[in-house]
Amino acid sequence: MKGTVLYGPRDVRFEERETPKILKPTDAILRISATCVCGSDLWPYRGIQAIAEPTPMGHEYCGIVEETGSAVKTVRPGQFVIGSFFASDGSCPHCHAGYQSSCQHREFVGTAQAPFLRVPLADGTLVATPGIPPDDLVPSLLTLSDVMGTGWFAAVAADVKPGGTAVVVGDGAVGLLGVLSAKQMGAGRIIAMSRHQARQNLALEFGATEIVTERGDQGVARIRQLTDGVGADSVLECVGTQESMMQSIQSVRPGGSIGYVGVPHGVMLDGAQLFFAHARLHGGPAPVRRFLPQLIDLVWKREINPGKVFDLTLPLDQVAEGYRAMDERRAIKTLLQP
Amino acid sequence: MKGTVLYGPRDVRFEERETPKILKPTDAILRISATCVCGSDLWPYRGIQAIAEPTPMGHEYCGIVEETGSAVKTVRPGQFVIGSFFASDGSCPHCHAGYQSSCQHREFVGTAQAPFLRVPLADGTLVATPGIPPDDLVPSLLTLSDVMGTGWFAAVAADVKPGGTAVVVGDGAVGLLGVLSAKQMGAGRIIAMSRHQARQNLALEFGATEIVTERGDQGVARIRQLTDGVGADSVLECVGTQESMMQSIQSVRPGGSIGYVGVPHGVMLDGAQLFFAHARLHGGPAPVRRFLPQLIDLVWKREINPGKVFDLTLPLDQVAEGYRAMDERRAIKTLLQP
Repeated sequence: MKGTVLYGPRDVRFEERETPKILKPTDAILRISATCVCGSDLWPYRGIQAIAEPTPMGHEYCGIVEETGSAVKTVRPGQFVIGSFFASDGSCPHCHAGYQSSCQHREFVGTAQAPFLRVPLADGTLVATPGIPPDDLVPSLLTLSDVMGTGWFAAVAADVKPGGTAVVVGDGAVGLLGVLSAKQMGAGRIIAMSRHQARQNLALEFGATEIVTERGDQGVARIRQLTDGVGADSVLECVGTQESMMQSIQSVRPGGSIGYVGVPHGVMLDGAQLFFAHARLHGGPAPVRRFLPQLIDLVWKREINPGKVFDLTLPLDQVAEGYRAMDERRAIKTLLQP
Repeated sequence: MKGTVLYGPRDVRFEERETPKILKPTDAILRISATCVCGSDLWPYRGIQAIAEPTPMGHEYCGIVEETGSAVKTVRPGQFVIGSFFASDGSCPHCHAGYQSSCQHREFVGTAQAPFLRVPLADGTLVATPGIPPDDLVPSLLTLSDVMGTGWFAAVAADVKPGGTAVVVGDGAVGLLGVLSAKQMGAGRIIAMSRHQARQNLALEFGATEIVTERGDQGVARIRQLTDGVGADSVLECVGTQESMMQSIQSVRPGGSIGYVGVPHGVMLDGAQLFFAHARLHGGPAPVRRFLPQLIDLVWKREINPGKVFDLTLPLDQVAEGYRAMDERRAIKTLLQP
């Protein structure tokens, strides 16, 4: 088969790779129905995160089970399944606590921009949908593999409550789905920080009640003004830079919560500043697996449509253009069809 | 009157100062029954935190109301009262949310190592006990002004739950009272980190189930071992150094909580490390006022005896020796009697 390999900064190739096969009895092989490019793929794509060698790419996936290892019990060939970017055993203390992305036996699933994918620890990782989905549901189901689950975790970690005020820092796909998540959790006000018209429109469609276009100190001042000097109950930090984290810490009210899901790059937090902000801070790689049953149900009933974040759909062999469009912010998120 | 003034590193003087008087209608004047030296007083005492000029000291206090301003309604002369080191108005959004130490009108109460004290915002700040306490209750009531309330907040912020495992980093008075607090909240295991015999004994008396004497990486390894590689549900960080914070982050389980109440001095947190630890972090200046009614009740009924942290009692005019004994770790905490 052909799959996606990153060779270096802005050098994505679609080239011949070995077709994956069962290596362990707990593996499953999926025939990918749809995959996509993640905002976090742009870190190595832009050369900000170095790669040591040509690296297969892709960690968001859904598809049909093609084959299972002899120990796999909960999914079977022919089922449509979704899994997280971290495979998890489902049985360790961290999985039981709902932190499957810190599973003691976790394995990164990183070769999904391809027609076939090996998923380790299939029983703990994959969740089957109630049936084979109609085509129009596939994009939304695909988002549950990472980006929607990550936006949801941001809202959970930020302790979004009915009637509360939530600020969303970051207007990438995760931030936009953080807006959708905060709306689902009943936030009374959802302030999205964005300066891009198309993203603002989607934020409003997903439930944002206000848009703030300022950034940095001016953005903080605007949030303070909008909250009568109190600060927000919840801040969803969906970027991962020093600026976005500082903006979050300065926007939250004492005792309020910051859910941060943007992988931090070069972020250093001043302990004393955090202390006197009285902020609650929680985040990390989203335990997407925890949320899959609930989110599949919401998509299946058509109560949420997170697939709207895909504003570009390409055949998989044009994956390089998919990266380019996101890098240049021409696309919010690219869906790839094998 | 004479009061305590810090002139520079290790230069504490007990000298003539103006007797405080009502400056605003919301003030109260207390006749101090007992005051004490705080671990945080040692930062400027040791010269680690610079002072610009000779500085009156003391922020832990209880005593009899001597006089009230014309607007004060909830306390009256003759009552025995306790207040926090931050005066708070009791009516702003932060006070309503239980974060009185971030009150929009907060004022630091910093001249308590003296026979008389002016307390601003008396209605929002002071809580009267059910009556004049017997002498033997005064030390425990005094701790509610800061050290016990701070240990309690550490346990609250660390989300201590019945049956859970709590680790307490720091064997100063706050850490020891963190142990007592975790015990009150029903923690199943309480692991105190201490290498001092007298402090270990008090920790065990307050409810610690295990003592870890190792520090740093070895301390972390020991906690990991004691928790079967999982990490602790709750960590109470009661020091405020880089080492103690790192130890806390590395000791907590994914999804577990760190309550940090040691004022951070030079602490920088690596965003990526925190992210992958999956830790919850909450702390800050303890909103002691929130806990006063509940803690007064527990002391009054003699269900807790936090006053045991005072292992040195001196007349107020020997305050300099009180600082010295704590600086040299000859005393856990010094109570001062005017």
